[in-house]
Amino acid sequence: MSPIVMKFGGTSVADLERINHVADLVEQQAKTSDGGIAVIVSAMAGETNRLVGLATNAAGPGIQGPDFDDEYDVVVSSGEQVTSGLLALALRKRGLRARSWLGWQMPMITDDAHGKARIEDIEDGKFQKAVSGGEIAVVAGFQGRTEDERISTLGRGGSDTSAVAVAAALGAERCDIYTDVDGVYTTDPRIVSRARKINRISYEEMLEMASLGAKVLQTRSVELAMNHGVPIRVLSSFAEAPGAEDTGTLVCDEDEIMEKQVVSGIAYSRDEAKISLLGVTNHPGIAAKIFARLSEANINIDMIVQADARGPERANMVFTTTERDSELAVSVLEGASSDIKFDDIVVDKHVSKVSVIGVGMRSHTGVAKTMFDALSEKGINIQVISTSEIKISVLIDSSYTELAVRALHTAYGLDAS
Amino acid sequence: MSPIVMKFGGTSVADLERINHVADLVEQQAKTSDGGIAVIVSAMAGETNRLVGLATNAAGPGIQGPDFDDEYDVVVSSGEQVTSGLLALALRKRGLRARSWLGWQMPMITDDAHGKARIEDIEDGKFQKAVSGGEIAVVAGFQGRTEDERISTLGRGGSDTSAVAVAAALGAERCDIYTDVDGVYTTDPRIVSRARKINRISYEEMLEMASLGAKVLQTRSVELAMNHGVPIRVLSSFAEAPGAEDTGTLVCDEDEIMEKQVVSGIAYSRDEAKISLLGVTNHPGIAAKIFARLSEANINIDMIVQADARGPERANMVFTTTERDSELAVSVLEGASSDIKFDDIVVDKHVSKVSVIGVGMRSHTGVAKTMFDALSEKGINIQVISTSEIKISVLIDSSYTELAVRALHTAYGLDAS
Repeated sequence: MSPIVMKFGGTSVADLERINHVADLVEQQAKTSDGGIAVIVSAMAGETNRLVGLATNAAGPGIQGPDFDDEYDVVVSSGEQVTSGLLALALRKRGLRARSWLGWQMPMITDDAHGKARIEDIEDGKFQKAVSGGEIAVVAGFQGRTEDERISTLGRGGSDTSAVAVAAALGAERCDIYTDVDGVYTTDPRIVSRARKINRISYEEMLEMASLGAKVLQTRSVELAMNHGVPIRVLSSFAEAPGAEDTGTLVCDEDEIMEKQVVSGIAYSRDEAKISLLGVTNHPGIAAKIFARLSEANINIDMIVQADARGPERANMVFTTTERDSELAVSVLEGASSDIKFDDIVVDKHVSKVSVIGVGMRSHTGVAKTMFDALSEKGINIQVISTSEIKISVLIDSSYTELAVRALHTAYGLDAS
Repeated sequence: MSPIVMKFGGTSVADLERINHVADLVEQQAKTSDGGIAVIVSAMAGETNRLVGLATNAAGPGIQGPDFDDEYDVVVSSGEQVTSGLLALALRKRGLRARSWLGWQMPMITDDAHGKARIEDIEDGKFQKAVSGGEIAVVAGFQGRTEDERISTLGRGGSDTSAVAVAAALGAERCDIYTDVDGVYTTDPRIVSRARKINRISYEEMLEMASLGAKVLQTRSVELAMNHGVPIRVLSSFAEAPGAEDTGTLVCDEDEIMEKQVVSGIAYSRDEAKISLLGVTNHPGIAAKIFARLSEANINIDMIVQADARGPERANMVFTTTERDSELAVSVLEGASSDIKFDDIVVDKHVSKVSVIGVGMRSHTGVAKTMFDALSEKGINIQVISTSEIKISVLIDSSYTELAVRALHTAYGLDAS
């Protein structure tokens, strides 16, 4: 049998009581798995924030970027180190063979982009040997080491990515991500009480769900799992048992999903701002010029619409970004007014993006029509539309967010009976 | 010029304000030292206790010794890791080049006696190169790594030992131990208000002072300094400046002390218990038998007196140990009664040991007489006496501790004028 990888986030290891519960789950898993177990842990809830606060205050506002990030990693990675030692002890208390593994010990080699490093390799060696020898490996998530033997961290939420990387390196049967919800839902259950847990979802759909605001899994971890063909199962760490095959949500290859839904889920995001650049003097290359400026300032642009205004010499350029980045975008464009001529710039933060996602769209027509009909029926005006192969997103007035999500959930037949 | 090593304990790095003060001291030191600087730091005060509590509770009472110690080291060493990152950032804020060094990065190789490891080697390599290249090295104290690439810790107070080991490896000019007092005193200033700070003290004297209850320096660090000829300076981290040559107390070779005192200091310890084994059936080898039993039970014995009782066939055997070990000693001896015959065993915890220490004793006579006269004058009865080349210790009723220390401090001319 192949190894199983289990990952527990901050709320699942928040205190010693929760760590003991995790140890119980691992103990039960060990009884049914004879291919070895690796457990990836986050810092105890609140600990990372405390450490980030210490590092930020020690450095002061003047020390940023590369001058800050390497030592930030030294300070912040200690949180996962502590949890890994504690869980190893809690497992030994249950009579199990276990030991902690820190990023530098495995070693989990990353690039040297401290604070947001990318995993390059997990060296094949004693870590793999220990797991296959039956010793439970408790891995400090979120951390690695650079070629230069400095500690690196993967950025917030990086423990999911650590877990998938470990699963790939071990050729694991599955990577089980234990979290505070019991799976991935067709939409946010806080908005739609009849939201249903999805049993199986494809990597592509999960990627769209994750990047569109469903916060269950980190986007990078899904990408990595897709690239290495590692099945991820999302399940609740509050359950009494590690769960049978059919608990939680399995994120897997499209081929392994028997009954494909046309639409698998509805996602939404309120963290959107619409920026309208009105009366832009239009000439070839103007769009490239605008978005190059924004890209240089590290501003992520999402939806884009360009339309003629008052004849072909003038255009209105409408795009969306995060609320946070919108002020910066305005100042960048105003600062470029010698180069980019326009009449006015208008920011609207009172917008939401609502998306329907499903691999079935590839082979089904009429998905967009269903969406537009459902929204129109509720009197919801669509401001911007963007589509990909497996999703359709619309920008709407944010007052209508819940109404839109509920209407679409019903329209695509996703409501639980 | 040779490098300078500076070490700061837990109270000196208790919070960000204190860490900033340490950074100020290091900055000033950097202005006058061009041979490089290494700074060794402890965990922030209270942090080690918090981490020890977590590890102990995670393991529960059943997991002890080797099953506990390796993961204990993983958890507890994170405290110094955090401080080293924070101080490196605080130094960069002052425009200095600095980076943290963890035990595994230097690497500081230790044996695998987790929780109380001994340093074997600091490999000659990039650590030394970084220091001589002018980058301030902020070293996480108290930690190393084993040959097997596990984290080890040196035991409580081990940061002093780390500092001396780093000083030895760098061939440092001096190892400055910053603490919450401004030096080593002729005796405890809380008892004798006229106690004087000692300007220079020999390694041998400091070893006696440390092992006899003066808690300024860890005994192991003094031994290591003596073996490698590293001068230690003890000084206050609360001062505004790193201090000139003559601040604090220099612990150095006897030869470097011009004016040798006959007696350098008076030490005392209240953590003593006197055990009297009365009417022991005396035959050759009985003493060896008694102390072999106690040694097997890991009980440290200090002073020993044997005297005939009721003729040569019976003896009284009196010895001292710590209060903590005294109960165990009694039960060990009572358990051995088939082998070791005696009439009665009496424990007296109401005793203190008072010692006078000085390398000058070697060449001066009458030191003991001065001691006995001074105590007798105050009506203090001496229960047990033990001597070494450079110290005389007496056991007395603990009610007289302060009186005895004050009388001896005056008798040897140590009172500040």
